[in-house]
Amino acid sequence: MTTADEKYELIVRDLQEVLDGDIIKKILAEGRTVKCYWGTAPTGRPHVGYFVPLTKIADFLQAGVEVTVLLADVHAFLDNLKAPIELVQHRTKFYEFLLRNVFKSLGIPVDRLKFVMGSTYQLSREYNLDQYKLCAIVTEHDAKKAGAEVVKQVENPLLSGLLYPGLQALDEQYLGCDFQFGGVDQRKIFTFAKEYLPRLGYNQRAHLMNKMVPGLAGGKMSSSDPNSKIDFLDPPDVVKSKIKKAFCEEGNIVDNGLLAFIRAVVIPIARLHIERGDGVRPFVGADAPEGSVFTVSRPEKYGGPLHFSEYAALEKAFENKEIHPGDLKTATTGALLTLLNPIRKAFEESDEWKTVERLAYPPPEKPGKKKEKKIGTGRPAATAPPAGPGTAAVDGVADALDNTTISAES
Amino acid sequence: MTTADEKYELIVRDLQEVLDGDIIKKILAEGRTVKCYWGTAPTGRPHVGYFVPLTKIADFLQAGVEVTVLLADVHAFLDNLKAPIELVQHRTKFYEFLLRNVFKSLGIPVDRLKFVMGSTYQLSREYNLDQYKLCAIVTEHDAKKAGAEVVKQVENPLLSGLLYPGLQALDEQYLGCDFQFGGVDQRKIFTFAKEYLPRLGYNQRAHLMNKMVPGLAGGKMSSSDPNSKIDFLDPPDVVKSKIKKAFCEEGNIVDNGLLAFIRAVVIPIARLHIERGDGVRPFVGADAPEGSVFTVSRPEKYGGPLHFSEYAALEKAFENKEIHPGDLKTATTGALLTLLNPIRKAFEESDEWKTVERLAYPPPEKPGKKKEKKIGTGRPAATAPPAGPGTAAVDGVADALDNTTISAES
Repeated sequence: MTTADEKYELIVRDLQEVLDGDIIKKILAEGRTVKCYWGTAPTGRPHVGYFVPLTKIADFLQAGVEVTVLLADVHAFLDNLKAPIELVQHRTKFYEFLLRNVFKSLGIPVDRLKFVMGSTYQLSREYNLDQYKLCAIVTEHDAKKAGAEVVKQVENPLLSGLLYPGLQALDEQYLGCDFQFGGVDQRKIFTFAKEYLPRLGYNQRAHLMNKMVPGLAGGKMSSSDPNSKIDFLDPPDVVKSKIKKAFCEEGNIVDNGLLAFIRAVVIPIARLHIERGDGVRPFVGADAPEGSVFTVSRPEKYGGPLHFSEYAALEKAFENKEIHPGDLKTATTGALLTLLNPIRKAFEESDEWKTVERLAYPPPEKPGKKKEKKIGTGRPAATAPPAGPGTAAVDGVADALDNTTISAES
Repeated sequence: MTTADEKYELIVRDLQEVLDGDIIKKILAEGRTVKCYWGTAPTGRPHVGYFVPLTKIADFLQAGVEVTVLLADVHAFLDNLKAPIELVQHRTKFYEFLLRNVFKSLGIPVDRLKFVMGSTYQLSREYNLDQYKLCAIVTEHDAKKAGAEVVKQVENPLLSGLLYPGLQALDEQYLGCDFQFGGVDQRKIFTFAKEYLPRLGYNQRAHLMNKMVPGLAGGKMSSSDPNSKIDFLDPPDVVKSKIKKAFCEEGNIVDNGLLAFIRAVVIPIARLHIERGDGVRPFVGADAPEGSVFTVSRPEKYGGPLHFSEYAALEKAFENKEIHPGDLKTATTGALLTLLNPIRKAFEESDEWKTVERLAYPPPEKPGKKKEKKIGTGRPAATAPPAGPGTAAVDGVADALDNTTISAES
C-alpha cells in the first residue's frame, strides 16, 4: 500500500455507493489520516451478520484509516426503553470485547481502531444545544423522510424516530470523522447529514455504503427465529446445526445466504491475507493452488475438492449444480468455525469477558416470560429491526449496519 | 392571611381553571411552602401585557408561594434561531431587571421570587437523558396535539414544535414546582405534563390557568403593529398616544382591551393594597370613598368623577354609556402611568440596566432592514406568536403566559 490512489481504491472497493469520495481523496492526497465513523447500538446479542460491516472495516484499517466505532448506548437505552441502562452498559462492554476479538480473529491491526460510547458526549451541553438547533431548522417531513428506511413505520410513531437522523448527523461532527460508513439502508440518513451539518456551520462528510446482505441462514427465515441467527459464541455443533437448517436450494444463487456470506466476508478476508502476503490461507485446502481463496470439499466420487480464486467462479459452479448444497454448507461451516474459534477461545480464557456476558445477557427469569420489562406506554414499539425494502427478513445484518435500530433478539 | 383555606382561595382566585388543586391544598394543610413555576422566553421586547400574569403571580407571592420564573433562554435561542445566543443572554438579563422592578412597582414582596435561566439546567446530562426518554414514549400524535394551541400551525412544521411540550413538562420536575402557572392556552401542554411526568417516575403537578386577556390596544389591531404594544419603558406621551389610538367603542364591553386590562391588572392590584391594609390607593381620586379601587374622572358638566369598588360596576357604567371612551382612555392612561413611572424611574437610575438594554435591543443597522439575521432554512418560521382560538390578535399577552412562543415584535 503506497499511493493515495491505491489507498482510496481499497477504501471504496466492493461498496454499493460512495457519496463525496473527493473528500477522502483530498485528505489522502495531502498525506493526512482519514477518519471513519461506524455506529452500532448495543441492544440485542450480536450475531455473525456483524462480520459483514467488520470485513469492510478491515479494508479501512488496512488502508490506514482511523476507525471510530460508536457504541451507541444512549440510542440502545432509548430504543423504546426495552433494556434498563445498567444492562445496556454491560452490553456495551460485551460489544467492545467482541468487536476487538473479531478484528483479532481477522488478523487486522487494531491500533487505529477506537471505541467511543455515545453517552460520553451525546448528553453534553454542546451536543444537546446542537441537537436543539437542528430541531429548530429540520421539518417533521424531512426528519420522517430521512428515517423512512431505518425507523420502523408504525401507526403511532414515537418522537425518538424523528430525532435519530439529526443525532446521527451530529455524531459525524462530534466523532470528528471524514466519512461515515453504513449499509445502503442508511442512504437517506446519510443524505440528511450531508444537507444539515453545513447548516450548523459544520463540514459535510463523505458517506460510504455497503450492500445489504441477506442473512446467513437464508432470507426466507424470520429474523425473529433464534435458529436463523448464529451467535459469535455458539459452540461448533450449534453452528453446524444452524447452517445445516439454512435455506440453500441446489442451483439457486439468488436466495442463498451462504453464498452471500462467502462473498461479503469469507473471500474478502482471504483476499486481505493474500494482499498482506502473510501466507495465511484460512479457507482453502492444503493442496489448493496459489491464489485460491475458498475450497469446497466434495467426496472423491463426486469429483473431489474444488478450489476457487474468486467468488464469481464459485457462484457459477453452484449455479451449474457442480456443488451440492450439502457440500456448500460443510465448506461454509468450516470457514465460519475458522473465524469463530479464536473468538470463542478468547472468550473462554477471559474471566472478565465471561462476567460481562453474564451481566449483559442474564438468563430469563422464567421460561415463557418476557426477558425485559417494557415501560407501559400502551403503544407498539416504533423502533425495531429495520424494514428496508427487500431486507426485512435478513439475518440482522442491517441491524449491524445501523445505529438507530436494534436486533429483534435479546 | 392565616388559614390554609384562605391561602388556597387567594392562590386560585380569578383563574379560569385549576387542575389538581388538591396537590396544593395538601401542602398548605401540612404547613409547607407551595412552589410555583412560570416560564417566559426572553425573545422580543416585553410589553405591558406582561402585567396580566405578573398580577396573578402577585397573589401567589402574597399567599406565601415560592415563585420560580423560568427565563427560557434556550427556548428563545432555539425559536427558529432568530436571535443569536449573545443577544438572548442580554435579553434574559433585561427581562430579569424588568420583572423584578414590575413586582416592586406593584408593591409585592419579592423575597420568595426566584429567577432561573433555562440554560443552567436544560442542557445538563440528566435533563437531556430525560428528554430522550420522553421522546421514546411520546408519539408524534400526542406531541402535536399538546402543542396545537401554542405552536403555530404551519405547512411544514419544525421538530422543535414537537419537543416543546416535553421540555415544558420536564421543567416542572427540574424546577421542583408543585404547580405550573400559565394562560389557558397552555391547557393541552399542561395535561400533557400531567400525563407524562409520572411515566418517567416523577410526581404529577397541579396546573393553574389564567384567562386569556385581549390586548390593551384592542383585539382588532394586529399584534405585529408596533403601535398596538406599549413598552414598559415608553415615555408618558407615547403611552398616552398609544392608548388614545386604542380601539374603544362607546358601550362596547366585549371588544375592549382597556376594560380587560383594568379587570385583569388594575383592580386586582388595588385590591391587594386593600387586603394588605397598606393605605395605598393607586388608582382612585383623593375624594373617593373607602373601598374604591378605580376612579374615572369626567368633566363636571358630564357628572364629575365616578368611583368604583369593583369591576362589575365599572363595566355596567361603560355598557350604559355613562362613561365616554375618551374618559375611560384617560383613566386607563393614568392607571398605567402609575404602574409604569416607578419602573421607568428605576431604569433611568440604573446604568447597569441601561447598558443591558442597549446590548439586548440594539438599534437596527439600517432603516427598513431586518433587525435580526435568520438562518437560511428557506422555510417559514414554525414558532411565532400563538394562534389560540380568539386570541390571535391579542396584544402579546398570550406570549407572556407562554414559554414556547415569542413576541412578534423585536
